[in-house]
Order: sequence, then C-alpha cells, then structure tokens
Amino acid sequence: MLADAGIVLTPSERAEIEVADFGLGQLEQIGLQLVVYVNTERVCAKELVLFPGQMCPEHRHPPFDGTPGKEETFRCRTGAVHLHVEGRGERMLRPGDQCTIPPDTLHWFQAGDEGAVVSEFSTQSRDELDVFTDPRIVR
Amino acid sequence: MLADAGIVLTPSERAEIEVADFGLGQLEQIGLQLVVYVNTERVCAKELVLFPGQMCPEHRHPPFDGTPGKEETFRCRTGAVHLHVEGRGERMLRPGDQCTIPPDTLHWFQAGDEGAVVSEFSTQSRDELDVFTDPRIVR
Repeated sequence: MLADAGIVLTPSERAEIEVADFGLGQLEQIGLQLVVYVNTERVCAKELVLFPGQMCPEHRHPPFDGTPGKEETFRCRTGAVHLHVEGRGERMLRPGDQCTIPPDTLHWFQAGDEGAVVSEFSTQSRDELDVFTDPRIVR
Repeated sequence: MLADAGIVLTPSERAEIEVADFGLGQLEQIGLQLVVYVNTERVCAKELVLFPGQMCPEHRHPPFDGTPGKEETFRCRTGAVHLHVEGRGERMLRPGDQCTIPPDTLHWFQAGDEGAVVSEFSTQSRDELDVFTDPRIVR
C-alpha cells in the first residue's frame, strides 16, 4: 500500500514497520501499521497504513513535561479515512484532505473499503502516554 | 513533479504553490517551489520541489521567541538532492533517504539532474527570520 502511494522506504524502514494491535488481538479490525520517519523532542513524522475498515480506537494525547501534549495533523494520501474529533464531529478525509487535531482532544479514525495511507505531522510522539477510552487497551 | 511523486494536492493548494527566487531573479538556478501543508506554532510540514540543478542557497534558522530556531528533517521522495550541512559535510539524498538539520546550522541543497521532491518535517517556519550567507538575498 505504501508503494502504491508512491512512498519509498529504505530496507531498514521496511524491516521496522510497527504493527499496533492495541493489545486486543483483533488487528484486522482494530489496529494500525506505522512507519516512523523521525521523532525528536520537537517534531515527529510518520506514515500510517490502515487496512480496509481497520480502526484506530478513541484516544487522546495528554500534556507531559510541561507541554500541552501531542498536536497532530493527518493528511490522507490514498484511500479514505473517516475521522472523528471530539467537539468537531465527523469528517471523511480523501487524498489531499487533512485535519489538525489539538492536543489532549479525543479522536478516532477508520479506513474506508480500500484502506488508507495517511501522513502524520506532529510534535513529539510519546505513545506510552496515550489515553484510550477503552480500558482494555494497552499501547 | 508532485503528481509523479504520487502526491495529491487540493485545487487551492495547487493555486497557492509558493515560488521563491530569493530576490535574485535566477529562479531556474537558485530557487525553490513549496507547498505548505501545515504551519502552526509547534509543527510545520511542506513539500519542496526543485527543478533539475536548482539550488536553495546557504542559510540558517536562528533562535526566536525563546525557541532554539527551526529544526528541519528533509526526506527525499523522488530524484536526488545534494545536501550540505555545516559541520557534517555533504550528502546525496535519494528516495527514502533523510537528514535532520539542527536549529541555527548553516545548510544548502541542490537537486540532481532530474530535479527532486523533498518532504520537510519541522518546527514552526518563520521564513522571514532566515539568515542567508549571500547578503543580496531577501526572503
């Protein structure tokens, strides 16, 4: 799917693609595949790959180390992704569409029937701090 | 060149592609084309398009507003770009290669014979603060 989106990875990036099933063991329904390009104290950039219908469950990025928490911009590259953001409702992102999610704001998203490749531009990622609404989830 | 890289833009993004000739009037040799996806107080993401042999001249991003200055990661998507970073020497970035440039560090880059598309992931862009080595340059 990344190759179809015109995205070239190095061999080591291909070997290190992160697969997150959020501890639920239902990867095809609830999960996410990630390529992390960079994650410094100030900036993070990733590609997110979602299988058809795959969902990333509701969560927020709380404040840490004196920062307001992670600010994320999602930009859809291929496919379509249904995005829900607390206080802003629902939106369908198609290629070229994007949305910026303020820190500490609940959100979830789900790919359409073709799956999706989504670029994420953000402040530092500290995934272990994410707060999920579903108490069964561990990141 | 963006379409060849598999990058989809909205009509308004296409209409707002920024062309920077740095006040030198030699765009084909010294210049840069930019699509700015997002530029908040915390995060910025752009695509840079360089014509064959086109160069972005030496500059640095100085501290401002209590920050250390803009931190940039360049990731080559198509073509090739020759990158020079003060204290780190020269590097040729090809598709999938990337380099993070610390704040306030002199750098310049030039596309190879095919041109290049380069993704830039960074902290906030304040282009008007950039310090160029060539005193004729205005941004």
